[in-house]
Amino acid sequence: MRILNTIDETKQAIRKLKEQGKIIGFVPTMGYLHEGHIHLIEACKKENDITVVSIFVNPAQFAPTEDFNRYPRDVDRDVKMLEKAGADLLFCPEIKEVYPEGYATYIEVEKMGKVLCGKNRPTHFRGVLTVVLKLFNITSPHHAYFGQKDAQQAIIIKKMSVDLNLDVCVRTIPTVRDADGLALSSRNSYLSTGERSLALYLPGALDKARLQINSGLRNAEAVKQLIRNELNRHSSIRIDYVDAVDLERLEDVETVELNDTLIAAAIWVGKTRLIDNFILGEI
Amino acid sequence: MRILNTIDETKQAIRKLKEQGKIIGFVPTMGYLHEGHIHLIEACKKENDITVVSIFVNPAQFAPTEDFNRYPRDVDRDVKMLEKAGADLLFCPEIKEVYPEGYATYIEVEKMGKVLCGKNRPTHFRGVLTVVLKLFNITSPHHAYFGQKDAQQAIIIKKMSVDLNLDVCVRTIPTVRDADGLALSSRNSYLSTGERSLALYLPGALDKARLQINSGLRNAEAVKQLIRNELNRHSSIRIDYVDAVDLERLEDVETVELNDTLIAAAIWVGKTRLIDNFILGEI
Repeated sequence: MRILNTIDETKQAIRKLKEQGKIIGFVPTMGYLHEGHIHLIEACKKENDITVVSIFVNPAQFAPTEDFNRYPRDVDRDVKMLEKAGADLLFCPEIKEVYPEGYATYIEVEKMGKVLCGKNRPTHFRGVLTVVLKLFNITSPHHAYFGQKDAQQAIIIKKMSVDLNLDVCVRTIPTVRDADGLALSSRNSYLSTGERSLALYLPGALDKARLQINSGLRNAEAVKQLIRNELNRHSSIRIDYVDAVDLERLEDVETVELNDTLIAAAIWVGKTRLIDNFILGEI
Repeated sequence: MRILNTIDETKQAIRKLKEQGKIIGFVPTMGYLHEGHIHLIEACKKENDITVVSIFVNPAQFAPTEDFNRYPRDVDRDVKMLEKAGADLLFCPEIKEVYPEGYATYIEVEKMGKVLCGKNRPTHFRGVLTVVLKLFNITSPHHAYFGQKDAQQAIIIKKMSVDLNLDVCVRTIPTVRDADGLALSSRNSYLSTGERSLALYLPGALDKARLQINSGLRNAEAVKQLIRNELNRHSSIRIDYVDAVDLERLEDVETVELNDTLIAAAIWVGKTRLIDNFILGEI
């Protein structure tokens, strides 16, 4: 696997590969890789000649009060995992390479970036979209891969790509879970053993809601209340949001549509914020 | 000249040309072409194999109170001028093609978009950047050409292109003027004969300032006051702004630097807003 740290080298390497007719797949990550990332890479390898991965903990998507500094990092371990998974090229820039002094350009998707995770993290998706557009421009991929755990992110990035007439095709890959049901996330490393057992209330609550929907429940408020009730069973869990929205505009729905609804929730367990969701339909 | 109205056809046509190794130049316009646009096309033809022009009056860069509806349009005349000037491809989309229902993605360059013309037109450059990025993505040019009359626009588009790691090289072409000194603008067509003679105070005031700078004046406030005094000689002229800023960040300067200053002004003559500038240095 080739490891590049500069934008110019990366652009040049990919330009050469494209001149050779190679199909380029791209998996952007913030590193501290887990099995969820490996699934993205596997999906990428199936559909492309070249798998490009980036590792960049993007300061623009963290608010000043958030966990940018303590976000887990271990590039050496990541490199080993990427070699094993068969990635071809790793782009691993310094912050100054991505955001040089005086950097000033930002992307926003109106409304969709201000709901769900955007309600209490109002600048988060602006930071995500900005870095993803830059990474798309640097790696000019045919396909790019995102995990369904961050469903809102995947939907908003798709929206940006369509709106800005990009040539990249955005793919969403199902969430990978640990044996206990917890969605894999680099942030799970923050959890103590006790916190981890609390965290399991999140997939548990979503599972119960899904079962009820499978049994015919369609009232969105009832679905959300069911999830809230499950989460409220333990007082140490703080709910950030529980929402039911349509897949295209991320607007609140009154009725759960089996082909067009995202049920998503975020909770705080101690100092750790966890998200999870399930989708009825396709994104 | 080939005329295309859809994004897909335009992308496909340009993809084919690039596969043939052609160097693509792009001149985005809002139509109602004048000699200034023709100079852009001439510069483009010199440096590229293929000259792509767009005509699109971009609603996103007009505020609701502004002149979007009455902005002059004459595509038939434009097409004749473009044929004569030797453009190869005209992209001329409907509004719905560029901004389909539910369009939501916008670009901003912080700070630089809120000064000069952005002070009283706070959403203007957001609209400009969004459409220009889309047009760049649709036409994927090697070079793109902008007029110096809209110096702030050219500088901000250059900034966006660098910040977002685009491959397009942004060129700025000197302002073209009528024999009486008025900078060419599609909006000059709004002016009555009486208003036109008032409009000439703008290039006149800038010329006097430039002469004083050539004679050694360096205090930016004195330069701006000189321009304001000239413009205030006629009470029917309303000054929007007179500013002296550096070329890189568009921040107010105290001292005019001969290699790094933009002196720019905007005035209202009746219902018509006119802008003009001169540059010490290069953009």
